[in-house]
Amino acid sequence: MLKSLLVSDLTPKDEIEARIEKFREEMEREGIHFSIILQNVDLFYFTGTLQKGVLVISVDKDPVFFVQKGLVRAVHETPLAITPIRKDKDVKDVLTDRGILKGKGGMELDVLPVLVFERWKSILGYDRLMDISPFIKDLRLVKSAFEIKQVKKSGEIISHVFEKAKSVIKEGMREVDIAAILESEGRMHGHQGFLRMRGLNQEMMNIYITHGFSGTVVSGFDVPISGAGVTHAIAQGPSVNKVQRNIPLLIDYGGGYNGYITDETRAFVVGELKEIFIRAHEVAREIIEETMSFAKEGVNAPEIFRKALYRAKREKLEEYFMGYGEGKVGFIGHGLGLEINELPVITPRHDVVLKEGMVFAFEPKFIFPNEGAIGIEVDFIVRQNYLERVTDTPIDVVQVGAP
Amino acid sequence: MLKSLLVSDLTPKDEIEARIEKFREEMEREGIHFSIILQNVDLFYFTGTLQKGVLVISVDKDPVFFVQKGLVRAVHETPLAITPIRKDKDVKDVLTDRGILKGKGGMELDVLPVLVFERWKSILGYDRLMDISPFIKDLRLVKSAFEIKQVKKSGEIISHVFEKAKSVIKEGMREVDIAAILESEGRMHGHQGFLRMRGLNQEMMNIYITHGFSGTVVSGFDVPISGAGVTHAIAQGPSVNKVQRNIPLLIDYGGGYNGYITDETRAFVVGELKEIFIRAHEVAREIIEETMSFAKEGVNAPEIFRKALYRAKREKLEEYFMGYGEGKVGFIGHGLGLEINELPVITPRHDVVLKEGMVFAFEPKFIFPNEGAIGIEVDFIVRQNYLERVTDTPIDVVQVGAP
Repeated sequence: MLKSLLVSDLTPKDEIEARIEKFREEMEREGIHFSIILQNVDLFYFTGTLQKGVLVISVDKDPVFFVQKGLVRAVHETPLAITPIRKDKDVKDVLTDRGILKGKGGMELDVLPVLVFERWKSILGYDRLMDISPFIKDLRLVKSAFEIKQVKKSGEIISHVFEKAKSVIKEGMREVDIAAILESEGRMHGHQGFLRMRGLNQEMMNIYITHGFSGTVVSGFDVPISGAGVTHAIAQGPSVNKVQRNIPLLIDYGGGYNGYITDETRAFVVGELKEIFIRAHEVAREIIEETMSFAKEGVNAPEIFRKALYRAKREKLEEYFMGYGEGKVGFIGHGLGLEINELPVITPRHDVVLKEGMVFAFEPKFIFPNEGAIGIEVDFIVRQNYLERVTDTPIDVVQVGAP
Repeated sequence: MLKSLLVSDLTPKDEIEARIEKFREEMEREGIHFSIILQNVDLFYFTGTLQKGVLVISVDKDPVFFVQKGLVRAVHETPLAITPIRKDKDVKDVLTDRGILKGKGGMELDVLPVLVFERWKSILGYDRLMDISPFIKDLRLVKSAFEIKQVKKSGEIISHVFEKAKSVIKEGMREVDIAAILESEGRMHGHQGFLRMRGLNQEMMNIYITHGFSGTVVSGFDVPISGAGVTHAIAQGPSVNKVQRNIPLLIDYGGGYNGYITDETRAFVVGELKEIFIRAHEVAREIIEETMSFAKEGVNAPEIFRKALYRAKREKLEEYFMGYGEGKVGFIGHGLGLEINELPVITPRHDVVLKEGMVFAFEPKFIFPNEGAIGIEVDFIVRQNYLERVTDTPIDVVQVGAP
């Protein structure tokens, strides 16, 4: 009966087993004897369910999946054997009996609050615990065929929303009203409801609509364009700014299907764009096309960034590339998956050699202070010999609002 | 120019100063010499801006508000003096120069991830740091006149959405489609975009629509009714379940204005409800009315819970009260503010004596396994001699979908 309420597929058993097995191999290489997984997204990745529980992966024993609440649902959703518990501290005896608590242990120290970590150290009577988040992130970097399928369905929601936008945007409308209509449209077409971003203070909207000045407001977030929001208590997203002729409007929308996030941006205009915006958009397009001409498995991420930056420089647009002044960000792309800030990050600051199955958003954007922002964002799947686009929605500026 | 993009007011200077002063007094009582605030909601509470920064409150020196990014916006939004920094580690020298780093320090250990905490200990070269989150929560418990004003505006969004629901709900519609339309409506009427919940794995939607079976699905979340969601990767919120005649539909919607959250639930039906649902709804109404007849400043929260439970028992509805089986929760109300899980919690498990200015959601609900859920949720402001409702939207079951 639960099944009839949902639209998406359960994670297959072999998929779950393969993920755990790969992680176990990594633990072995790192000399970690057992790992305790508590964060909901990591739990979903390794178990297939989001119900309240604790997963313990050991290098030499079967995984133990403790479930505290949502038992019926967990049983239906995970292929793993379940050990029901009433309280978190009930795990101690089971782990001790099975001889799992020995050697070096691991937890997700990038997201676990200090008090939660202290509580677990006391529950386990154990403090040889190190951070396993880099290994989880590395594992999640390369997507399986099942995951790519979910990513593509997520991308279909984006295509639908961009198509709908053509008939929605009109002169005089507020950014927030356009956003409300399009977000609603995405939801009706299978959007999961919200998107996830890993880490302290990481918040996000499903849709960002910026127009002229609002696209240039610098925020505390590590994104090139955040929007102003309708309140300084949120400080991001669409504002009550109204659509004017000849000013670029950007829609940056995140698809979400079965947990998997996609993230693309298109430019729209009522009327005609000024020369500077046309040129910058053309450069953004060239950066995407050039990237698609050489990037593939084996290419190092900094090379992608540097080629893009070179082109921006050559066109005398460097000053506006990926932000202006204090708003400039140090990346042109970010990994996608169950969280929107996964690896790889496409930045000159650290090496990541692309590998088949990686998925990332690529967003050459230009911000002209006070005037407006323009650019494109597309999502790529890394293949052995090429980059595959997640959606096939065109990247041209879309003229809208014709009577 | 930024101002014209937003709908809400800045936090007044005297309000910010009073909050910091009260916190400083509490620090003094607790023997804490300085506090370092990093979480975005706490930063917003104490500074009035959500831009990226670090607030240091000391018992005997002026507060130091370091801002790392979003400087122009922060200057506009906070009444505090700003110390711009390029990197988080730049705070060390300033704090050392001003003689602030001495004695016991405090940080928000309920939300700070372990790695962030470790980084700060190393930046400061200091590890006499304790948890200050209980003091922040206590301070935020009682709302000021300015905050109550924001709460009421947040409540107006709820009233509007419930009114709109009357003409939206029709037989055969999917929960998620009703949700999409109503969420969009709320956004157009000033909703800030998303709501906040404090702590690891705490996620939420703006709107929950459940109907019959979907209202009875038990989830891992600590709520009486979570909905099934459209995917097990989210596992909460509206599903693709379709509206049928004579089955209760609940809308649980969270307003959000200038950061402040409200949270109410109403019951709707196409056709007529079965006797058991009518009776349970009537008991929920009586619980609310009885609570309003005695609760006020000075009343202890467990007394409110016990009186409600007594009435449920008397009506032989105890089994279904606030959940069924493993889905039963231990509270009937929760505090509201910048986060939806603030204090006071209305539970028999711990004492909180009500005080003027506290704001909480009160939600007597009954869940009948497989059949459906019914109930009401209203928000209260504690006054000296009574409870004040945040909205004036009626609490009767609303008959909808008439042709």
